[in-house]
Amino acid sequence: MIASAALVGEYGREIPMRAGEIIAIGSELLLGGRLDTNSLFLTEQLASVGVEVRFKSVVGDVEADIAAAIRTAARRAKVVVLTGGLGPTRDDCTRHAVARLTGRPLRRRPEAMESMRRRLAEWGRTPTGPQLRQALIPSGAEVLVNPVGSAPGFCLSWRGCLVVALPGVPAEAERTFAGSVGPKLALDSTVKERLERRLLHTFGLPESDVEGRLGGVVRAGSGVRLGLLASPLGVTVSLTAWRQHVSDLDRLARRVRVRLGQSVYAEGKDTMEEVVGRHLAAHHLTLAVAESCTGGLVGHRLTQVSGSSAYLDRVAVCYSDRAKVDLLGIPEALIRRHGAVSAEVAEAMARGIRSRSQAGVGLSVTGIAGPTGGTAQKPVGLVFVGLDAPGRRTTREFRFHGDRHSIKLRASQAALEMLRQWLVTTGSRGR
Amino acid sequence: MIASAALVGEYGREIPMRAGEIIAIGSELLLGGRLDTNSLFLTEQLASVGVEVRFKSVVGDVEADIAAAIRTAARRAKVVVLTGGLGPTRDDCTRHAVARLTGRPLRRRPEAMESMRRRLAEWGRTPTGPQLRQALIPSGAEVLVNPVGSAPGFCLSWRGCLVVALPGVPAEAERTFAGSVGPKLALDSTVKERLERRLLHTFGLPESDVEGRLGGVVRAGSGVRLGLLASPLGVTVSLTAWRQHVSDLDRLARRVRVRLGQSVYAEGKDTMEEVVGRHLAAHHLTLAVAESCTGGLVGHRLTQVSGSSAYLDRVAVCYSDRAKVDLLGIPEALIRRHGAVSAEVAEAMARGIRSRSQAGVGLSVTGIAGPTGGTAQKPVGLVFVGLDAPGRRTTREFRFHGDRHSIKLRASQAALEMLRQWLVTTGSRGR
Repeated sequence: MIASAALVGEYGREIPMRAGEIIAIGSELLLGGRLDTNSLFLTEQLASVGVEVRFKSVVGDVEADIAAAIRTAARRAKVVVLTGGLGPTRDDCTRHAVARLTGRPLRRRPEAMESMRRRLAEWGRTPTGPQLRQALIPSGAEVLVNPVGSAPGFCLSWRGCLVVALPGVPAEAERTFAGSVGPKLALDSTVKERLERRLLHTFGLPESDVEGRLGGVVRAGSGVRLGLLASPLGVTVSLTAWRQHVSDLDRLARRVRVRLGQSVYAEGKDTMEEVVGRHLAAHHLTLAVAESCTGGLVGHRLTQVSGSSAYLDRVAVCYSDRAKVDLLGIPEALIRRHGAVSAEVAEAMARGIRSRSQAGVGLSVTGIAGPTGGTAQKPVGLVFVGLDAPGRRTTREFRFHGDRHSIKLRASQAALEMLRQWLVTTGSRGR
Repeated sequence: MIASAALVGEYGREIPMRAGEIIAIGSELLLGGRLDTNSLFLTEQLASVGVEVRFKSVVGDVEADIAAAIRTAARRAKVVVLTGGLGPTRDDCTRHAVARLTGRPLRRRPEAMESMRRRLAEWGRTPTGPQLRQALIPSGAEVLVNPVGSAPGFCLSWRGCLVVALPGVPAEAERTFAGSVGPKLALDSTVKERLERRLLHTFGLPESDVEGRLGGVVRAGSGVRLGLLASPLGVTVSLTAWRQHVSDLDRLARRVRVRLGQSVYAEGKDTMEEVVGRHLAAHHLTLAVAESCTGGLVGHRLTQVSGSSAYLDRVAVCYSDRAKVDLLGIPEALIRRHGAVSAEVAEAMARGIRSRSQAGVGLSVTGIAGPTGGTAQKPVGLVFVGLDAPGRRTTREFRFHGDRHSIKLRASQAALEMLRQWLVTTGSRGR
């Protein structure tokens, strides 16, 4: 267990899969301050073709260390995916490690030269001396075209294991995998089907409540795996099964949805900001936001969605009381009487930003993100969200835990969720 | 190599250290969507006591897999740190894996019970049945007090290797390590000194320029390691050496600083937003920000710093043209003539937010974050930053590459950097 994540249900070997391993190569990944992120999408992609990642590891750009890691992995896995160390600099030695370990000398391969030349030509360049090293491929290995970078990948079979070497740059690794490795693995005669996954994202229910509501929903032997992951943005429920059980999976997903009710704000790859954006766009509503403790995070999240300018009119981050008076027209006396962190001010903020902007909906957040500024009456983590929408004017109080960043995250999520709830229930008829 | 990171100079075995490995345990870390972050601070902490992490790995909550990972690691390392799998649920089996592998049966240990009872008592609770499992420790192992959670850690020597088991929750892992493991490793007779590190964060210079300017600055055999890491927030230079070479290290750091000049915006653990905040506070200046394409990200970053309410007055995210007219008083004709993404509008935004708020400084960003909305004249990635400060009114044009998120990040960094440059050079005298 790590962070606030917890798994419930039958997580184990219920779904038989081929064992896979991922080895990320690069000394910078061992320096602290940088993490391998390729394994995130590789894990997903491999699972979808029936390969379960059971070990992930990170090694530096040291030939002997890379070889040792591959040797260990190949003993226990059917598929080993390497990322990184294929570039043109002297520290890039993945190809040398594979060549020496498998006894297949490096050869300059015409397909690799061609793939590299084509990419560089698009950028108006020709290969330099160091870049020519990128065309060196272990003999007998298959060259994997890199559609977005100059270093091609390769794959070969060794001791019954498929060893795949991908470039380290995330976009290149992803595109190279999707273009050749994914299809190859899917065609493998040992895979008869693919894994399907359903994700349901909830907010507002504690982890233990989600767990409680799902009790007994997945029976042992059903062939469906249930997982539960918690973060400041909420609790995500995952259901996984082979495609042959896809109707069971969908039936279970519907049952889970019913049990969790309105708390499910999104499914699959959707985010809260995308869901809210789609509802606003569908209803031809514009939005104006007044933020205090979240400092712009609500606006930042909404504008992560391409096309958000269609519905987001403005965001006023009123950190000072004077800004609340100026930009939102909140009476100073109201702030003096109730304090800037109060239901009254949250309501006035939502009302103020809506009326000043003439946007369809006004949303506000005010609170104490900490670590300083809390009192006994108004502790760190106290947050008020206000909503001013056609036919609906409301505020809600929250008490969050955690550090400054996670309180800001939870507060932004609570604000967006309050807006979503209104859009879903009232938004369609209340205008 | 991964992402846009690149290492230059002598990165290798120049500094002799004890070999270390980190094993993160938790099936949720293999599901995709979640990364082990404990290894980030553990790598730093271990380096500071002379342990170099050469391999990192991730395994699921599977006893045999955990044992296999420890066995492999112990063969090549002197220190193996495990995180996770010490909790009260049935899937937590790290202690069982260690006990079986090392042949040291689990015993309920009074010190562990005591540590757990004390923590739970603070929360007004007593241990439940499942929590009692957390007091099971391999016999002969030393119990490590967990100062912030209920699951204690432990450590033991096995085949000449120190095996340390820490809880998986990041705050608990960090505090448990700092409280007992760090001091123990530092006292180890084989460590005579500690590693020192200097970090210099730059923005505005391409990676190749930084590399070019640093050519020959670190000589082979100098005992100082030079590293270079690139991200959307800029290029970071790291210099590492044993404490006995600390004067060489500081001399080199000064030389690097001179060569990189004004591009160095922060050192060590400092962030851009902290540096800008400190300058503003020191000069008793308030700030108002007008954002367009960054959508609130500048405000979000500034308010990640505790105490930022002392200098941040307000942020106006003007996504619509009407908002620019209303909140900043920009003439509609100016927007029609030059377009919302233009030097003229950027200047008017900075001027408008400053005069309306009466803040000491006005800062603005307008641009095209993409992926849509670009034209031949105004492509995706075109960004203008405006600054309106006492004695200084200026704008600057940038052309960034990357996806929507990295363009937003680069634009926010460019805006804060422009403010910092003014604060450093003019800020002190220009008022």
